[in-house]
Amino acid sequence: MTEPVLVVGSTALDTVEGPTGRADDVLGGSSVYFAAAASLFAPVRLVSVVGEDFPDEARDLLARRGVDLAGLEVAPGRTFRWHGRYTPDMNDRETVSVELNVLGSFRPKLPEGYRSTRYVFLANGPTATQHSVLDQMSGSPYVAADTMNLWIENEREELERLLGRVDLLILNDAEARMLTGRQSLWAAAADLAARGPRTVAIKKGEHGSYLAGRGGPCVVPAFPLESLVDPTGAGDSFAGAFMGHLARAGSMETEELRAALAAASAVASFTCESFGPDRLLSVTLGELDERIDALRKLAAF
Amino acid sequence: MTEPVLVVGSTALDTVEGPTGRADDVLGGSSVYFAAAASLFAPVRLVSVVGEDFPDEARDLLARRGVDLAGLEVAPGRTFRWHGRYTPDMNDRETVSVELNVLGSFRPKLPEGYRSTRYVFLANGPTATQHSVLDQMSGSPYVAADTMNLWIENEREELERLLGRVDLLILNDAEARMLTGRQSLWAAAADLAARGPRTVAIKKGEHGSYLAGRGGPCVVPAFPLESLVDPTGAGDSFAGAFMGHLARAGSMETEELRAALAAASAVASFTCESFGPDRLLSVTLGELDERIDALRKLAAF
Repeated sequence: MTEPVLVVGSTALDTVEGPTGRADDVLGGSSVYFAAAASLFAPVRLVSVVGEDFPDEARDLLARRGVDLAGLEVAPGRTFRWHGRYTPDMNDRETVSVELNVLGSFRPKLPEGYRSTRYVFLANGPTATQHSVLDQMSGSPYVAADTMNLWIENEREELERLLGRVDLLILNDAEARMLTGRQSLWAAAADLAARGPRTVAIKKGEHGSYLAGRGGPCVVPAFPLESLVDPTGAGDSFAGAFMGHLARAGSMETEELRAALAAASAVASFTCESFGPDRLLSVTLGELDERIDALRKLAAF
Repeated sequence: MTEPVLVVGSTALDTVEGPTGRADDVLGGSSVYFAAAASLFAPVRLVSVVGEDFPDEARDLLARRGVDLAGLEVAPGRTFRWHGRYTPDMNDRETVSVELNVLGSFRPKLPEGYRSTRYVFLANGPTATQHSVLDQMSGSPYVAADTMNLWIENEREELERLLGRVDLLILNDAEARMLTGRQSLWAAAADLAARGPRTVAIKKGEHGSYLAGRGGPCVVPAFPLESLVDPTGAGDSFAGAFMGHLARAGSMETEELRAALAAASAVASFTCESFGPDRLLSVTLGELDERIDALRKLAAF
């Protein structure tokens, strides 16, 4: 039986606008995109927080995917809200507004039954919160983590310590450069892999993804999308597919790590095809296999 | 016997500076980098111009590679000089100074024996000059061309007409976006392939290269260089390896076009390992095969 995957991260109601249109108050957040992707491969346990305004339909969407919501706390107040706007070229975005709401005081407490989960993903969030989750775990889980510029700037020391506690670091190219001060992505990845994580996966958007350390070096191209609607959640669904694939494979051998990278790249491409997680939630394993196969053909030379 | 490849482009004495050091008056120019790379695979005929100050040693370097220099005109005056400076991250460069010198009045005239060459590369240059070369050719050569922002801005109409006369367009990502007005590189490449060239090869620097149209879609990663010394000439040596590979293969089948892309990517990586064409000129076919093999392993997932 496939081992479950635990994710600790945000749940949000997102408003997204850009050259392809606008969507208001759609289901979002790192834990949601991760769970939607990982549940294609493995059972998922979600630890997050929502407010009293969180719609039942959103909860049902995840429950129908078999996501275990025992760790989804409902706190007094409103759900975390993020409003972002993509640039005309879709390569960058600005935050129009953020309401932390219940996320501001979120101190994840793992249900007893979650503490021995074998696969754990610490989504982007305050580094102390990421440490506190690991402090609650028993056994020796396979731990993956993400981070962002805010924590790299302000919590450098705690973050360096976190690197020593994770097996897999998943971040984007700008973050890898910022965290290491190295311009060459190859050098940045090698540097990070030497600081603790056995494996480093770097997301490069339209330029694909790169795996360094154990399993690497490996490059998977991005799938050439005809219609890029909204990249929000692509990174978290990338992580979800990566971890879900590993849990299903039950192995961290080189071949599986590389196949996980391909699955992650393929799944992230579906995420970009709609506002919110709609397209991601409708993907079938057959469609996924087709897209992974297309990536392999793209890289056959 | 492998058919020869004809290149028409610039010959320069380059001064290059950047975070990795500085080199003064090194051999450069598009025809030189192209010829150095293509001569790994096929006989090369070079059409270009130099001044009376062009050093004999530079000429000898090319002659020793078997490059046919019957088309290298020596004009009264000084050789074209370019002085560039790379940014600290090596991802961009600025031109410190340009002295066109003899290149300013260069009107290439093909030696009679060159006019039926089967493979022709029109390096970056005034679009009218590129047309004039094709006007001098007989038969139906396989034609590849490069261009740059200056001509895209100022010679749009002539450039559009050129697209209808070439089989293979080789340009970088920024140029592809500029020429089509499309932000998505996939869309830009598809658009270009619909305007005449059967095949479009897009160079993306550290992000590798992409082939669209006939032979595509195909993505080849960049080789993860440990020491990037000077990217000058990488693009022209990419084109040289691509065309040289095709000439040696004697075929424009999909498989050969994709192998040409891999060879081009590998050769360009050697070019970046030294100032000037030194490293490129020292590459052996054995080293090249090793690097192509490494690229294939990098893309095995």
